[in-house]
Amino acid sequence: MKIESRVQTQFLSAETIAQLVNTLGVATCLRGVADYLHADYLRWEAFDKCARIASHSADGVIELMPISDSAHYAFKYVNGHPKNTTLGLPTVMAFGVLARVNTGAPELLSELTLTTAIRTAAMSALAARTLARPASRTMALIGNGAQSEFQALAFHHLLGIEEIRLFDIDSTAMAKLVRNLAHTDLRLRLCESVREAVRGADIVTTVTADKTSARIIMPDMLEPGMHINGVGGDCPGKTEMHPGVLNGASVFVEYEPQTRIEGDVQQMPIDFPVTELWRVLAGKAAGRTDDRQVTLFDSVGFALEDYSALRYMRDSARALGLGQPISLIPDVANPKDLFNLIRPAPARKESAAQQPTMNRAA
Amino acid sequence: MKIESRVQTQFLSAETIAQLVNTLGVATCLRGVADYLHADYLRWEAFDKCARIASHSADGVIELMPISDSAHYAFKYVNGHPKNTTLGLPTVMAFGVLARVNTGAPELLSELTLTTAIRTAAMSALAARTLARPASRTMALIGNGAQSEFQALAFHHLLGIEEIRLFDIDSTAMAKLVRNLAHTDLRLRLCESVREAVRGADIVTTVTADKTSARIIMPDMLEPGMHINGVGGDCPGKTEMHPGVLNGASVFVEYEPQTRIEGDVQQMPIDFPVTELWRVLAGKAAGRTDDRQVTLFDSVGFALEDYSALRYMRDSARALGLGQPISLIPDVANPKDLFNLIRPAPARKESAAQQPTMNRAA
Repeated sequence: MKIESRVQTQFLSAETIAQLVNTLGVATCLRGVADYLHADYLRWEAFDKCARIASHSADGVIELMPISDSAHYAFKYVNGHPKNTTLGLPTVMAFGVLARVNTGAPELLSELTLTTAIRTAAMSALAARTLARPASRTMALIGNGAQSEFQALAFHHLLGIEEIRLFDIDSTAMAKLVRNLAHTDLRLRLCESVREAVRGADIVTTVTADKTSARIIMPDMLEPGMHINGVGGDCPGKTEMHPGVLNGASVFVEYEPQTRIEGDVQQMPIDFPVTELWRVLAGKAAGRTDDRQVTLFDSVGFALEDYSALRYMRDSARALGLGQPISLIPDVANPKDLFNLIRPAPARKESAAQQPTMNRAA
Repeated sequence: MKIESRVQTQFLSAETIAQLVNTLGVATCLRGVADYLHADYLRWEAFDKCARIASHSADGVIELMPISDSAHYAFKYVNGHPKNTTLGLPTVMAFGVLARVNTGAPELLSELTLTTAIRTAAMSALAARTLARPASRTMALIGNGAQSEFQALAFHHLLGIEEIRLFDIDSTAMAKLVRNLAHTDLRLRLCESVREAVRGADIVTTVTADKTSARIIMPDMLEPGMHINGVGGDCPGKTEMHPGVLNGASVFVEYEPQTRIEGDVQQMPIDFPVTELWRVLAGKAAGRTDDRQVTLFDSVGFALEDYSALRYMRDSARALGLGQPISLIPDVANPKDLFNLIRPAPARKESAAQQPTMNRAA
C-alpha cells in the first residue's frame, strides 16, 4: 500500500551526515555550527527551557533533551554508557527531531552521534572565544576518545590553537588521535600524565568518559590566565575537577538549573557562584576580566545546542540536496479518518449490502 | 560510503504498521495489545515512571513520554493540536523508540500515530473489562474523530458491545464512522445530542478533541451501573466531565501524578480519591463493587502503554518479517574512533609524509 505522506519528515541518516561533513569539511561544519549556536544563544530568552530528563541505570544514562521557541520544537535522545566500548559500541549515541510548534509535525529526523561531537566541540570553542585569553595557542587535551579530535579541530580552526598536548590513560586512544589528526597543521605532543599535559597550557580541555567522581584536574595544576573547558563532567556522579579547581576559577555554565545537577559544580554548595554563558555573549555579564584570571566552562551539553545543530544540519543538507523523506507519520486524505488506513479493502467500495444496521434513535 | 551499522535499529514506518494491522486484522491487534498492556500493568512496580514532559503553545501541546524497566527504555513523541484538521493534518501524530537499558542502543523506531489509536482503545477496553458491568452491551460514543472506530471495535471485540450510540457535533464525522464500521456486526445508532446517546448506555466513551474545559457529560446523565471511559480530557485546560460527574463516580486512573495534572480530575481538589488501575488488575484494590456503582476511567494515556504497544508491534513485525533497518547510529570499527567516519579519504592511507609533528614531551 502506497501512502503519500502530507507530513514531510526528512531523514538524515548516519551515512548522510558523514557524507555532509565530508563534503563541506569538518572545519566548515564546526564554524557553521558555532555560528548557529551563537545566534541561538543570543535569543536565549525566546526559548522554553528545562533540564534534560535522565533515566539512570547501573551501566549508564538515557536522556531526552527537549527545547522550543515559538517556531520550532527540538529534542535529542542521547545515552552515556562508559562501558559500551568494551562491547564495540560508542559510549554516546544520539538522534533527534525538529518539529513545528504550530502543528506538532516532525519535519526532520537526524542522527546526532556524529553531530553531537561537532556541536559539543563548537560550543566549547564558542565559550573559549569569549573566556580564554585571545593569545591562547596551546591546549591540553585530557581524554582522547571519540570526541577528542573534534575538540582539537574546533580549537584549531576557531581559536587558533597550534599545539595540543595529549593525555589518555589508554595509549591506543592517544595513538588513534595522532593518526586522525595527521593531515592537519596541529603540533601534537604526547604526554605521560595529566600534570605534564596541563603544565604551560593556555587552555585545558577535559573530555573523559569514566562515570566516577574523578579529580583529574587538581588545584595546584592551575596557572594564571588558564581557561579550562570541562566537557566530561556531565552527569550526577561523573566529575573531573577537584573542588579546589572550581574555587580557584570563575565558572561559566550553559543552563544553571541543569548544570547544578550534572556539571562539576554538583560538588559545590547550591549558592556557589556561576554565570550563564548567554549573559556574557549578550553583554549582560562579564566574561574574562583580566589576563591572570582562571576561567572554567563547566559544559554539560544543553538542549539549545542540539536545536542549533539540527537547524544547521537541516539547512546544509537542503543546500547539498542530501537526505531522504521518511514515512514517520501516516497520510490520510481526511485527518479525522485514521481508520481508513486499515479499513479492509472490500469495505472501501461501499455498497448497499455493506451498510450497517442503522437507526435514527427515536 | 557504506556504513554497516552495529547498532541494528529496526524501522516500522507508517506504511509498515498499516500493513501489519491489515495483515493481522484490527481485532487481533487490539486483543494482542490489550494482552501486552495487561502483562505490563501487572509488572507496574518494575517500571521507572514519570509524568510526561509537555511543551504547551497557543495551538497545542508536544509531549515526550519516557519509561523504563531493567531491560528496555521506551519513549513516545506525541502532539495534540485540535486545529490541525483544518490544515489537513491529524490532531494527534506520534512516533516512538524502544532502546536497550544496558547499552542505550535504540533497537526500534516506529510510527505511533495509528498505534496510539490502537493502544488507547485497547487500554480503554482493558479498564472496562475490570470496571464495567460484565453484561454491558451498549456504548455511547461521544466524539467520532480519528480514534472513535478503534474505541468502538475494542469494546466490540474485547467486551462484547453490540450497539454503539454515536454523537459528534460534526455530522460528517458521524457519517464517516458509520461508513468505516459498515463491515462489522455492530449496530450503529446516530443520535442528535450527547444526552440522547448516553441515555440507557451501559458504557459511555468520550473521545472529543477540543482543548477547552468542556462539560460534555453532566451529572444528571449518570445512570446506576454506568461505566464512563473518559479519553478526551487529557491535558491541562482540556476536560470533558462536569465536576459533579466525578463526584458521582468511583474514579480510576493510570498514573496518579500525571492524571492529577492532565485528567478530568484536574478540576478536583488534590485529595479527591482516585485508584490506580494497576492496583485493581493486581488484586490490590477493589474495582466495581456492585451493579449500581458508577465507575469512571479518567484516561490520559501513560508511557507504559506505549512501551507495551512498541513491544507488541516489534514482536508482530518480526513474526511477519516486516520492517527495515535504518541507519540511525553510525557504525565505527573502533567505538573510540568516531572521527574515522569523516577523516578525509587520503589520510586513511597513512604514509610517513602525513605524520604530524610529534614530540614526546620532555
